[in-house]
Order: sequence, then structure tokens, then C-alpha cells
Amino acid sequence: MITRLSHLFLRTLRDDPADAEVPSHKLLVRAGYVRRIAPGVYSWLPLGLRVLRQVERVVREEMNAIGAQEIALPALLPRDPYETTNRWTEYGDGLFRLQDRKGADYLLGPTHEELFALTVKGEFTSYKDFPVTLYQIQTKYRDEERPRAGILRGREFVMKDSYSFDLTDEGLAESYRAHRDAYERIFTRLGVRYVIVSATSGAMGGSASEEFLAESEIGEDTYVRSIESGYAANVEAVRTVAPAPIAFDGLPEAEVHDTPDTPTIATLVDWANGADLGRAVTAADTLKNVLVKVRVPGGDWELLAVGVPGDREVDPKRLGASLEPAEYELLTDADFAANPFLVKGYIGPKALQENGVRYLVDPRVVDGTSWITGADAPGRHVVGLVAGRDFVPDGTIEAAEVRDGDPSPDGAGTLTSARGIEIGHVFQLGRKYTDAFEVDVLGENGKPVRPTMGSYGVGVSRLVAVIAEQHHDDKGLRWPAEVAPADVHLVIANKDEAAREGAESLAVELDAAGLDIVLDDRKASPGVKFKDSELLGIPVVVVVGRGWADGKVEIRDRFTGESREVPAGTAVADVVSAVRG
Amino acid sequence: MITRLSHLFLRTLRDDPADAEVPSHKLLVRAGYVRRIAPGVYSWLPLGLRVLRQVERVVREEMNAIGAQEIALPALLPRDPYETTNRWTEYGDGLFRLQDRKGADYLLGPTHEELFALTVKGEFTSYKDFPVTLYQIQTKYRDEERPRAGILRGREFVMKDSYSFDLTDEGLAESYRAHRDAYERIFTRLGVRYVIVSATSGAMGGSASEEFLAESEIGEDTYVRSIESGYAANVEAVRTVAPAPIAFDGLPEAEVHDTPDTPTIATLVDWANGADLGRAVTAADTLKNVLVKVRVPGGDWELLAVGVPGDREVDPKRLGASLEPAEYELLTDADFAANPFLVKGYIGPKALQENGVRYLVDPRVVDGTSWITGADAPGRHVVGLVAGRDFVPDGTIEAAEVRDGDPSPDGAGTLTSARGIEIGHVFQLGRKYTDAFEVDVLGENGKPVRPTMGSYGVGVSRLVAVIAEQHHDDKGLRWPAEVAPADVHLVIANKDEAAREGAESLAVELDAAGLDIVLDDRKASPGVKFKDSELLGIPVVVVVGRGWADGKVEIRDRFTGESREVPAGTAVADVVSAVRG
Repeated sequence: MITRLSHLFLRTLRDDPADAEVPSHKLLVRAGYVRRIAPGVYSWLPLGLRVLRQVERVVREEMNAIGAQEIALPALLPRDPYETTNRWTEYGDGLFRLQDRKGADYLLGPTHEELFALTVKGEFTSYKDFPVTLYQIQTKYRDEERPRAGILRGREFVMKDSYSFDLTDEGLAESYRAHRDAYERIFTRLGVRYVIVSATSGAMGGSASEEFLAESEIGEDTYVRSIESGYAANVEAVRTVAPAPIAFDGLPEAEVHDTPDTPTIATLVDWANGADLGRAVTAADTLKNVLVKVRVPGGDWELLAVGVPGDREVDPKRLGASLEPAEYELLTDADFAANPFLVKGYIGPKALQENGVRYLVDPRVVDGTSWITGADAPGRHVVGLVAGRDFVPDGTIEAAEVRDGDPSPDGAGTLTSARGIEIGHVFQLGRKYTDAFEVDVLGENGKPVRPTMGSYGVGVSRLVAVIAEQHHDDKGLRWPAEVAPADVHLVIANKDEAAREGAESLAVELDAAGLDIVLDDRKASPGVKFKDSELLGIPVVVVVGRGWADGKVEIRDRFTGESREVPAGTAVADVVSAVRG
Repeated sequence: MITRLSHLFLRTLRDDPADAEVPSHKLLVRAGYVRRIAPGVYSWLPLGLRVLRQVERVVREEMNAIGAQEIALPALLPRDPYETTNRWTEYGDGLFRLQDRKGADYLLGPTHEELFALTVKGEFTSYKDFPVTLYQIQTKYRDEERPRAGILRGREFVMKDSYSFDLTDEGLAESYRAHRDAYERIFTRLGVRYVIVSATSGAMGGSASEEFLAESEIGEDTYVRSIESGYAANVEAVRTVAPAPIAFDGLPEAEVHDTPDTPTIATLVDWANGADLGRAVTAADTLKNVLVKVRVPGGDWELLAVGVPGDREVDPKRLGASLEPAEYELLTDADFAANPFLVKGYIGPKALQENGVRYLVDPRVVDGTSWITGADAPGRHVVGLVAGRDFVPDGTIEAAEVRDGDPSPDGAGTLTSARGIEIGHVFQLGRKYTDAFEVDVLGENGKPVRPTMGSYGVGVSRLVAVIAEQHHDDKGLRWPAEVAPADVHLVIANKDEAAREGAESLAVELDAAGLDIVLDDRKASPGVKFKDSELLGIPVVVVVGRGWADGKVEIRDRFTGESREVPAGTAVADVVSAVRG
């Protein structure tokens, strides 16, 4: 196919758009690939749509290769199935809801577990029909609070979502593995640098879950990894390495001290080091009790105390992930007033437990550890309070921040944090959705058996931004061949009629050789044309320029920047081999 | 590609779905192509999705062939542009409206004239950039009052919409012609029997407009045509053939008569024929004045009187189309009470004109025609009231019903009515939308010039239903090759291991020859398999059955029902030639 720039619906921009902060957003807009219609809502212009379709093609090929079958569910969905699973409510403001002319409730699908479970229930009735994996590549909707960076985090976006249905846990593990492998192939073909991290499954429910994160400084996801072992995990998924319990024998008794004006950890540590406790005290020796209130959607608010070593903050994301699907809020002044036993800055385990407040502690607070903590009275702390002896928490919680240098959960090396963009997600959902809809099929032994589900997503439109983010320079985009909007960008940079005709013939021959050509046949200066070729980022740039008179054509590699002249006579073969590598 | 029925996500149904009335709906559900999710909202199962993609491919190829460029606009659209053109209001209940988490208004796009006008405004600034035609193949939303017949009239559906932008009327006519020709090629390739009818442009605005209607008894659109001339038009678009005006000389004076108990045309004609008026009177000699109230959206209701010959009813669709974008309602008793000069059953031109009621008449009411009509008093009519002499209407209106036998507007032959399904629509929109958004570009002479638009639609998902409607028999679907979900349906109807292996090899060879194969490798009886092959409707059915032992394979043509045996040795070549014709 030959696409003429003289005809193409394209206008490149010299300046970055005012609302763009990240390189991919700036370049995709400047190069005329996408345009903003509303916050998080974009249109795809011709070249952008081609890249999107290329990504879709790669995803589709790899899904078909693992035997997944493509179907298409609607985006406009009735409320009922989402009511059954409580996601109509759980999604909160993130769901676009609407009513039809008769007042019936609908939503715009953010993900389709409910509908796929119902679809399989509707068609398949026997163990002989399983396993089955279905997928769709479809426009999805989420009313993001902060749509961001153009198509990177949109409110209308294209996603590939697939769902596996197996009769056994082993089958699910196999389907999960097949998807995980397919995703590795997809992201490798797309030229994306990524890591696979252990993940919590959030509102999706279920157990085993990993995320594919594209490495990127502008990513919103923080993950940690151990260089030594290759371990990588979402911060939310990091399991704290707990020390071994300590025997109580010989541990000193707890003693309450007057500690005037020590409402913060820093002031408390200062007091402790001045009080001659017989040892140097650091923040890690103190136990900080943070109060929040928690509720399951639709339920009542209840107090929850979270105890963490004083040298660490509570990480809101980790706390939130640990509590899901319950939500939490910080206490208001009114909450403190209603619970006078909570003495701000001096809260201790004693008052919490006497007043029936649920008390969860960091996993480092094992039996036998001794703490300086609040004594539930202004200006008073208790020293030498021993976990398991002087107080017994209701359990542990992963809520304390993870820090660079923390030991890796797999026992090898220490953790370092990095940022990434979520591009894929694989879940072993289990039977949450098949339970909700009572999806039962006839088992081999004649008894009903309930399929177990996996759920797998790839952010298709997001990947266009991710690839642009990972593959650009200060001049423009640099598409990997697999997703480029064309194979060759052929620039006519010579006003001579013979050169123009030669370029036109070359385009026709390259087209005949099966390549997609963008032909810059505009009446513009070579400088303008070269700048646009750099901005558009097609991998191989061919220039019919001054050298034409000497029988030469130039071939430029947009990725390496290398350039070489080849004889016009062999140009077709040379370009084909440059494209096909 | 080989698709195994033992693995395919497919369950065919023996019985028609309870909610299905038309054959295409019944068969597409029974054959497992689509499934209902909500009223007018369907999912596409694997084979259905393949047919949908085939239709998309044909449409895309023909759009690209006329130089149209594909882009993709969002379905979730902000209110503002639709407010500018007043369609936010005009669409009424037909529009899905919603709010985001911040309370901003959005809609789900029913058609995209606004956004395409804005998109072109955003990119192109000079006459040199024109003409340009853009299109998308996209999911659209309309909250139909009566979603119908499965995917035939859905609320979520796939449409190809394109928009041409030209600087001159001649250019627009050329773009319009190119689309019209492309549509003819599309529908011919898809095997659809269709007619092109003159159409009104409805809420779209603009002038020249034609509809492509698939011939079908279950169609909701009535059109008329003249067999003699080939003229065809939507009933709404039929222009009445008006007689020549008649000179007033020698026409008798109008006379008011007592006509007790004649509130209907029938009773009035009876009276007239008994009153010895010197000639036989028919309903066509009477003038019926129908009162409605009319308002432009957002405006006040105003009275409108429509005068039609008494032998014809007012056709609500024609009246509605003539009044658009204004809407109309019938008068209530309260309206009559508020306007006592309106004497029900005896309304005449005199009172209407004395009281300033807008009065539009059928085009047959030309100057010099003489009428029996109401005299604005109970039990009184006027005879010999001459148009242009005794009353002067405010204009004409196309509101009277069109009847079989009416003269064709092109002067050749008479009209006959038929039913069809709208599958395509071409409009010369003009500058309605470029005016609304002040789309101006630099003209050749340095002055701004405003592009004129065309708008063109194809109902892509609807076409799947239309093709099924036109191509089926009582056993199932019969897809034309261009849209079939596969080329060959290969049935293994022989339990012998050698036959099974032979069929598997044949499938592999047909696949290697570039054909798409559905291979029925299930453990089911030949009878069940044959029934399913008829239901699914793939054009060429190949049976490896009893004949295998004698080295024979059967080839069936699903369309003609013909069947023949070929030697196994030449089966690949024979099947390829059966598929490729």
C-alpha cells in the first residue's frame, strides 16, 4: 500500500500540546496520531489507528495461538449481573452508569467477568466442553479520577480481556501459564521492556495474580525487585520478612514513664535516649499505632488500629490493598471526640484492647519483641511492652511502607524500587464468578462440577503509548517494525522531475514487494520532510535526494540513526532487506 | 485455518428462541452466531463475529478504494458539540445520555457529524488540503423505542459512517457519487438485493439524499416504485404530482349549505349525492382540514391546519418528515375548547384564515380547483369553494398518504409500494455542520472558504441480519461466499479410523490451499452433523462418509442443495474450485 502525505489526513505540530507532560503524549499528538476529545477520551487519526491495529493484530495472533476463541460482548451492559457480584456498588465512581429511556440501569463495561461467566453458562453444559478460553478486543470504559498522559490512562480505551474456564485447579494453573507465556511473547514482539511482578488482585477477587509492568520512569505503579534473585512484586504484594519469635524469659517488665511533650516518634526517641534506658533507642524500637475507620461497602464504619514500627510510615496503597474490598478513611476530630480513650500521640495497645478496637500489627511485631509505645494518657509512654506477653494483637497486616534495602521476601538479596506502567495482568480468579452465577456443568461422574476461572487483560491502546514512551528520541517516535504504521517512509527530496518519477517508481516496486509505504510527495522543503520523517518514526526512511543524479538512494535507520547510500538499481532489494532485517 | 467443532465455542439450538419473530433472528440465534444480553444489545459468538468482520472487510476495502481514510472517534462524547447543533435536544429519548464523576454531561454517539466537522477543523486549514473523506467503522448507540429482530435494529450496533468535505457543490456531488457507487459495489459483493430510493434527510438536515433499502417483507421502511421508469422513493420523499391550475372564469360561486349530521367525509359525500348538485360527488371532491399543533424543539406550540382531499388520510410519517425538525401532536379536547372557532367535523378555510391559523394544503389543491369543505358551523358545509379565489393557503405540504396506482413523480407509470430495510444512506449535508462550528479554511484567492459536507452510513451489524434474512431456507442459513464464516464445512461422517485420518489430511491440505475450514470432528451422528452444517450455512459442505471406502468424497453446495461425489484423489482441487467458483 502506498500512502501519500500529499493526501493523508495528517497535520504534524511543531509545538508540544499545552496539556502534555510525558514524552509519548507530546509526540503522539505532535505526530498527528491521536487527538483529545474530552478528558481521557481520544480519537485515533489514520497513522495512530494503524499502530493500534498492529498491536491488536499481535495480541490476536498470540491469543489464537493458545487456542483462545474470539467473541465480542457489548460495552453497554445491564446492571443485574454486576449487582449479583456487588461490583455495581464496589466500583464506586469508577463506573459509568446510565439509564435507558425506560429508566432501566445500565453501565459501560469496565471488565467483563460477569458476562463471560454467564456466556459460558448459556452455551456449555458438560465436562466434555472444557477447558475453554474466550477473549475479546474491545472498547472499555472507566471513569478514572485522574485520566492521564493522553491514551496512557484513558476513560475510553481498548483492552484485550480473556477468561479461561477449567474444571480443575491444575487446569486453571495450565491456562494461567499459557496466558503468561503468550503475554511474554506479545510484549517481546511489541518491543516492550517489562517485568513480571507478583500482584494483589484488588477488587477482582481470587488468588494467584501477576502484573506485567513496562519499565518506565513515568509509571504510576511502584514495584520492588531483588537484583540478586530476580524477585519482583508490586509494592502492595510484598510480604514482609518477619523475624523469628523471641522467648519471653528474662525480658524486663514493662514500665510506664512520664514523657512530657512527646507526641511524635522523633520527640519520643529524643526522650528515650535522654532517659538512660540502658541502651541506644531508634525509631525502630517504638510502636506507632495509627487509627483508621473501615467498612465493607454498604456496611458500618468500624475502628481499626494499625501498629507499625515507628521508623516506617503506613503506606496508604498497601493498607488499602490489604483491606479490600473494605474501604478505609482517616479519623476526623469528631471521631476522636467520640472515642475519648484515643489519646492522640499517646495511643497504646492497652486502651485499644480494653475498648474492643480491632488491632492489627506489622508482621515484624512478633511474639517477644519489646516496644516503647503509648500509655493512653497525655505525656505518658510505656517502655518494654512485649508482644504476646503484655498485649496480643488481633492479627498482622501488610500496611507499613516497603523501603529500598528491605530484605527480599524470597530470602535472596534486598529490594530496590522502580516505576512501571501496567500493561498486562493475569489472575487465577477461582470460582468467585462461577459461584455468583451458579455455573455448573455435568461432571464426568454424573455430578455437577463448577468451573474455575482465570481472567487476563492486556491494555491494547495503552500499549501504543507505552511503546512510544520506550521508543523515542528528542526528534520523534521510533516504532519497532512490528507495530509501525508503515514499513518505509520514502522522502522525495529532489525537485527534479526525473527524481520524482524515480521515487514514484520505487514506491510502486516496494509496494509490489509487499511493503507498506508512506510516500512524502508534498511540495515542501527537504528539511521539513526530514523533520516529519523523524517525528512520525517509521523504521526505515528512504531518501530520493541529491544523490539521485549519481544513481544513489539513501537508506536511513530511524532507530540507530545510521544512514547509507545504495545504488538506485538495487534500491528495492536493499530496502526490502533493511525492512525485513 | 482449521476450526474444530469439537473445540469451537458453539452450541446450536433445536428450537427457535421465544422472543424471535423473523427468520434471520431465529436462525442467527439457533446457529449460535449471536446471543441476547439486553433489549437491542447482543454479543457475537465466534462464527457471528467472523461474519461481522467479513462485512467490515468488504466495507473497508470499498471505502479505501474511493480514497476515504479510516480514523476512529470515541463513542463517549462530550455534550458541547451536540449542544451547538441542538441535537442534544433534538434526539430526544433516542440518545443515551450520562454524566461522569464530576457531573459533566456525555452522550454515546449515535452518529458523528459534529465530531468529524471539528476534527477536520482541527487539522486542515487550506484549500490545498481538500477534498478529504474520512470514515470509521465503529460501535454506535441509539436508545431505540422498539429494538427489534435481534441485531436488525439494535441499541448497540456497528456502523460505517463517512464524511466528505469539499469546497464546492460540484465537489460534493462528486464525493456523493463516489460513495453511491461504492455502496452499490459493497451491497453487490455482499449478495444483498436492494433498491436505491430518494429519501428525506430527517433530523440530519441537508438536501440530496438517497437510501439503500434491502428488499424484505419484514422491513420497517415502506417505499414506492414505478416499474415502468425504475423510480423509487421512500414514502416520505414522494413529491405529489400536482395538476395544472384551472382558470377561475365560469366557475360557479361558492354556496353554503345546511348539511346536518355530516361530520365525516362519508356522510358528507352521501349528502352531496342526495342534494342534486348537478354532478356525482366522490370523496376526492371534498377538502378535509386536519388540525395539529407544531413546535420547533424548545419553542411554543402553534396550530397548523393541513388540507387534503377527502379520499386520502394524512400519513403521520409523511407529515412528520415534512415538518422536521419541528415536531407535531394531535389536538386535545382542551385545545379545541381553547379555540372555539374550530368546529369539529366542519372546519373550513374561512375560520382558519380569519383566526390566523397557518394553513398548508396538499399539492393537488391548485388554483382553480373547487371543493366541498366545512363552513365552520355545526351541520354546515360550503360547496364550490375555489382555491386561489375563495381562499389562499399559506403553502403546500406533502402529508397525504401515497397510494398504489398514484402517478409516478417522474411522469412514467404508476407507483407500487414495497417494504425494505435501510442498509445504507447517502446525504448531501451541505454546510449545516461547518456553519455550526465555523469551519473555514484559506481559499485559493486568500479569502476564507467554508467546506460543504456529505454524510454516508452503512449499517454493518444490521447487514449480517439482512444477509441472513435474504439468504436462508427452512433448514438454516446460506451465506454468500464473501461473508461466510468459513469456506468449507468438512463433515466426518464415518467412524472408520482411516476415514477420519483421511478427513484430517484433507482438512490440512485445504488449509494449505488457503481455505478456511470448519471441521466437524465431533463424536456425533452423521444426522446431527448434517443438520448443523445446514443450520450454520457455510457455502461448501464436504462429507467424508460411507463413500470413503470406495475412494469418494461428497461435495454439497449449501445454496443450490446440489451434491456430487468426487474421487478422494482430486478432492482438494475439486473443493478449491467449488469454493472459488
